[in-house]
Amino acid sequence: MTAAPPRVLADLRSDTVTTPTPEMREAMAQAPVGDDVYGEDPTVNRLQSELARLAGFEAGLFMPSGTMTNQVAIALHTRRGEEVICAEGSHIYEWELGMMAAFSGVVPRFVPAPLGVPDPEAVRLAVRHSVHQSPTGMISLENTHNKAGGTVLPPEVLAAVRSVADEEGLPLHLDGARVFNAAVAQGVPLSEITRHFDTVSICLSKGLGAPVGSVLLGSAAQMRQAHRYRKMMGGGMRQAGVLAAAALVAVRDGPARLREDHRRTRRLAGALLEAGYSVNMAAVQTNILYVTLPDAAAQVARWASEGVLASALGPDSVRFVLHHQVGDEALEEAIRVLTA
Amino acid sequence: MTAAPPRVLADLRSDTVTTPTPEMREAMAQAPVGDDVYGEDPTVNRLQSELARLAGFEAGLFMPSGTMTNQVAIALHTRRGEEVICAEGSHIYEWELGMMAAFSGVVPRFVPAPLGVPDPEAVRLAVRHSVHQSPTGMISLENTHNKAGGTVLPPEVLAAVRSVADEEGLPLHLDGARVFNAAVAQGVPLSEITRHFDTVSICLSKGLGAPVGSVLLGSAAQMRQAHRYRKMMGGGMRQAGVLAAAALVAVRDGPARLREDHRRTRRLAGALLEAGYSVNMAAVQTNILYVTLPDAAAQVARWASEGVLASALGPDSVRFVLHHQVGDEALEEAIRVLTA
Amino acid sequence: MTAAPPRVLADLRSDTVTTPTPEMREAMAQAPVGDDVYGEDPTVNRLQSELARLAGFEAGLFMPSGTMTNQVAIALHTRRGEEVICAEGSHIYEWELGMMAAFSGVVPRFVPAPLGVPDPEAVRLAVRHSVHQSPTGMISLENTHNKAGGTVLPPEVLAAVRSVADEEGLPLHLDGARVFNAAVAQGVPLSEITRHFDTVSICLSKGLGAPVGSVLLGSAAQMRQAHRYRKMMGGGMRQAGVLAAAALVAVRDGPARLREDHRRTRRLAGALLEAGYSVNMAAVQTNILYVTLPDAAAQVARWASEGVLASALGPDSVRFVLHHQVGDEALEEAIRVLTA
Amino acid sequence: MTAAPPRVLADLRSDTVTTPTPEMREAMAQAPVGDDVYGEDPTVNRLQSELARLAGFEAGLFMPSGTMTNQVAIALHTRRGEEVICAEGSHIYEWELGMMAAFSGVVPRFVPAPLGVPDPEAVRLAVRHSVHQSPTGMISLENTHNKAGGTVLPPEVLAAVRSVADEEGLPLHLDGARVFNAAVAQGVPLSEITRHFDTVSICLSKGLGAPVGSVLLGSAAQMRQAHRYRKMMGGGMRQAGVLAAAALVAVRDGPARLREDHRRTRRLAGALLEAGYSVNMAAVQTNILYVTLPDAAAQVARWASEGVLASALGPDSVRFVLHHQVGDEALEEAIRVLTA
Repeated sequence: MTAAPPRVLADLRSDTVTTPTPEMREAMAQAPVGDDVYGEDPTVNRLQSELARLAGFEAGLFMPSGTMTNQVAIALHTRRGEEVICAEGSHIYEWELGMMAAFSGVVPRFVPAPLGVPDPEAVRLAVRHSVHQSPTGMISLENTHNKAGGTVLPPEVLAAVRSVADEEGLPLHLDGARVFNAAVAQGVPLSEITRHFDTVSICLSKGLGAPVGSVLLGSAAQMRQAHRYRKMMGGGMRQAGVLAAAALVAVRDGPARLREDHRRTRRLAGALLEAGYSVNMAAVQTNILYVTLPDAAAQVARWASEGVLASALGPDSVRFVLHHQVGDEALEEAIRVLTA
Repeated sequence: MTAAPPRVLADLRSDTVTTPTPEMREAMAQAPVGDDVYGEDPTVNRLQSELARLAGFEAGLFMPSGTMTNQVAIALHTRRGEEVICAEGSHIYEWELGMMAAFSGVVPRFVPAPLGVPDPEAVRLAVRHSVHQSPTGMISLENTHNKAGGTVLPPEVLAAVRSVADEEGLPLHLDGARVFNAAVAQGVPLSEITRHFDTVSICLSKGLGAPVGSVLLGSAAQMRQAHRYRKMMGGGMRQAGVLAAAALVAVRDGPARLREDHRRTRRLAGALLEAGYSVNMAAVQTNILYVTLPDAAAQVARWASEGVLASALGPDSVRFVLHHQVGDEALEEAIRVLTA
Repeated sequence: MTAAPPRVLADLRSDTVTTPTPEMREAMAQAPVGDDVYGEDPTVNRLQSELARLAGFEAGLFMPSGTMTNQVAIALHTRRGEEVICAEGSHIYEWELGMMAAFSGVVPRFVPAPLGVPDPEAVRLAVRHSVHQSPTGMISLENTHNKAGGTVLPPEVLAAVRSVADEEGLPLHLDGARVFNAAVAQGVPLSEITRHFDTVSICLSKGLGAPVGSVLLGSAAQMRQAHRYRKMMGGGMRQAGVLAAAALVAVRDGPARLREDHRRTRRLAGALLEAGYSVNMAAVQTNILYVTLPDAAAQVARWASEGVLASALGPDSVRFVLHHQVGDEALEEAIRVLTA
Repeated sequence: MTAAPPRVLADLRSDTVTTPTPEMREAMAQAPVGDDVYGEDPTVNRLQSELARLAGFEAGLFMPSGTMTNQVAIALHTRRGEEVICAEGSHIYEWELGMMAAFSGVVPRFVPAPLGVPDPEAVRLAVRHSVHQSPTGMISLENTHNKAGGTVLPPEVLAAVRSVADEEGLPLHLDGARVFNAAVAQGVPLSEITRHFDTVSICLSKGLGAPVGSVLLGSAAQMRQAHRYRKMMGGGMRQAGVLAAAALVAVRDGPARLREDHRRTRRLAGALLEAGYSVNMAAVQTNILYVTLPDAAAQVARWASEGVLASALGPDSVRFVLHHQVGDEALEEAIRVLTA
């Protein structure tokens, strides 16, 4: 990742770079707080209830990152030596640094996933039954799928993978870091997506714009067990209500803004395509855009020197991510730089 | 732990229960922030530098909890199957839920520690050399020692254990969750204690009063490696500067207040002793006080119903912890309840 | 451990040093074998059934070592981050190199054990219930207790710990590496001891004299799961019947010989006591003898140069272990050397 | 896997099913043995030296299985959270039940491998450098590659991957369970293949025909460390010389017989092809043959009822493995059954 230059026109490296809004700062300054390790922080409790309500779950647990909510879910659902079925390119494997192995002692079992969408029959075939092989411990989906370009899983795929999970007696987890983006893109309530899952991880510090935090959702019994794994990983925070206060603002105000991020992503994709860049338009579904070009790191460095920040994620791959702190004007300036 | 009742005269369960001061709230509202996973949060960077400077280290890394800073240190210093020499009753074993085993794959090797102080010769004898046994990976001390009553390690013990570590070629870690209390109690600068160690973990949300966070200190190379382990454990936070801002206030204002906490702890100890409670006065050295009495849980529940909160930590053991949000007046009210 | 000198009068380092008898060699040469990873080795199957029958269990599983049978049992009974209650000095901690942490992610919780016998009430108090602490995953006893001197657990202690396990809903494992010695010393059938446990590990290559192998006993369902953990640890052997054949001879002929080992151990203890050595006669219950003396390693080296091998297990502690390949004559020669 | 029927014409399920020859039984009956945990078994020591000499390494360590030698090698080369680069379909992932995760805390990073041969440039691209990703800990190759059909890695691929390892500063391990087959197929000495690697695992109980055991090869320092990991996994066996004696016979007599196994595999492949089966002849290089056909499990069951055993390894995939206990006559009988 490139360090920020003096003058930044548009920071499109990730939707994690958003800084708290004045409303969030104000909420943080006012929030009633308590010791969350004892379960006594009223603002954290309110955030957990609010997300559980929106997604249709019994309970939620606030943690410092989406890596922790995902890895706690993996610990909840598996025993050492088991396999986690997931789409190739999944965040739980690509960007969570082997934690599934180091903490839970489990390995991934990949299924192909064109545009981030695994074939439910491939999921079924990936379930292992032989005593000579690692048993399958869980299935995990990612929606939207980051590495595939912020792509959305079709409802029929969710339903079909849920059926596989039921037939095989396996738990189904959703890495929903950007599941609000998926709901907005499909024009459905959040719960229409999350209802297929046993546990869901939702990130508040990506497009929603909160400074820090993710929430894991599941049954009350699972969240009691998750509490222990959170503590083991060092995620037991004290007056975490200061963070939850900002997150509540993000949950209230953020979703409505995502539609704009998606519109701007399409605008950027179109402009780059027109300028001759190689863009897979089928993958442009939410707020993430991948462009294929030679010598990505050097190109990203050149753009950075002109104030447009993007991420080189491979020798010939550049990722742009739109978020609420890049408005139309900034975007047009960025396009001028990128298409110059 | 008992839930907070409607009217609390004094919450003496832990120094983790302090809520952010107005200065901290203000600092959180104003702090410049960035994406700390990219290393770009200026407030986090300032906090890390400030603590490294105070303790005499090259670098620091901010994390959501003291459990994480300790467990990342253990991961830094050990390989799977090794032993961690520590005093019996150490926090890294008693209150960190087996994370040393689950993540680092290591086991504790205890040395006796009357008043929390291990005999350096016992530490030396605990080092394992046989190929038929687990090799020793590191030595860890805790100062002040929580379970022993907030006791302080004498300087000659630090020096002697450092010598053992040097002679055996072993890294030495300090769980310094309350090391500021130790420095204040001994009237020495922080670095006079921390200079004996390879890595030091300092908690900002205990007596210092910050809402959330701990810092791990060590060499720059160690902190680069620690960055990866922090990410694995899910401690990579985004705009963590909002927390670091409060922590900087805590580091600036907190240490001066600890002397008062210690004075009040002695006051409470004396009053309880006088009232006939069993108190080991030799252990009353900083802000923690243990009292031995029958049926601790029931007694704690009775006091809670009268507005004085303490922790029952065993069938016949109650812990009181003083902190800056229990002043002299509240303390005297608490004493009236406790000695009624 | 000292290397064997040219002329060895008596190798008393351990009962693991026994070499296969002519009967065992013959059995190995004749045994029908198959692929045990497929469960098709008839001699392995016979050994497993025979031990299950003797100890009163549904099923057994043959493995290359007692470390593996114990560690597979720990994996069966625990989840990551839990605690294993065991007597201080237990083999599963002292001599199994941190495997409980590295593989199962669990930590030991020690109870004091004078003469290797834990107080059942101490076991009960060691069970953890707080959500802030590691939950207890299992209880493990060791009978005879190696490090305490081959001591035998009294029947009322077994019954009382079984009650604790039942009341707390915890599984109870027996490290019965030398449980045949315990049964012989108490003059009871094996099953009188083993019936208190959920799983039992029995070693065939100690006093019984087989060249290689241990068996884990439990329910058929547990052994199916154990099969997977055995394979993970690399304990899936192919034509293991060649080893099982020798082990069947050991199970048939070995127990009857243990009484002689115990008699010779008392003879050695008496002779050393008379010669002025410091011997705790109360601990001399089976085939192990500890003597306390200064500069143990040097003394052991001197004896070794005269043909008597023992183990220095600490700066001032020497262990002698009797076994069927040290007869009365060799023992008397050894005593002459040791008391010269 | 199918259970063996009463009358078996040819057991082609695996080369692990071979039973010890009379020469092996005789060697087991005569072998001098000692306690190998103390390093005192002369026959084990001889086996380790002999394989180290043949493969050009400083030292070797005998273990009960190839899973253990591979997993100890992974533990030697990696730290928790790292990635192991390997060809897709590698035994260390497909058949070692997640042990790389459970014990070493590492995850696989796959490279495509048509016919089991990875492109060295793909290996280079799989090396990770970003601090946001798991670092690469080691590279592992498998030769012959079991799941690809017993295929042999070309010498130029070995050399090129060695160059990648050198340039990236990574250790290179060989899962050489059947590396003798590779050497025989290429008509080169074993060391011509093994010289490219830092560590090599060789299985003695596959085509070579020993009842039990594998050897890990590497530097003397690595084997000292490997000794500890072997003990952790429960692979410390006592009078293991009885197994090593048979293995020495296997090493002496086995390689010469492999050429016949390869010839018979080609004969079987040709006959099945002629009979209309779908066989990829390019993959028929050593003693393994895969045939693609519908409803593999049912077909394998039918053949088994006629005395020909094979393995169904997937819904439409059957594996045949030739070994020295299926001679020409038995093979022709099997072919009659398979082509009836």
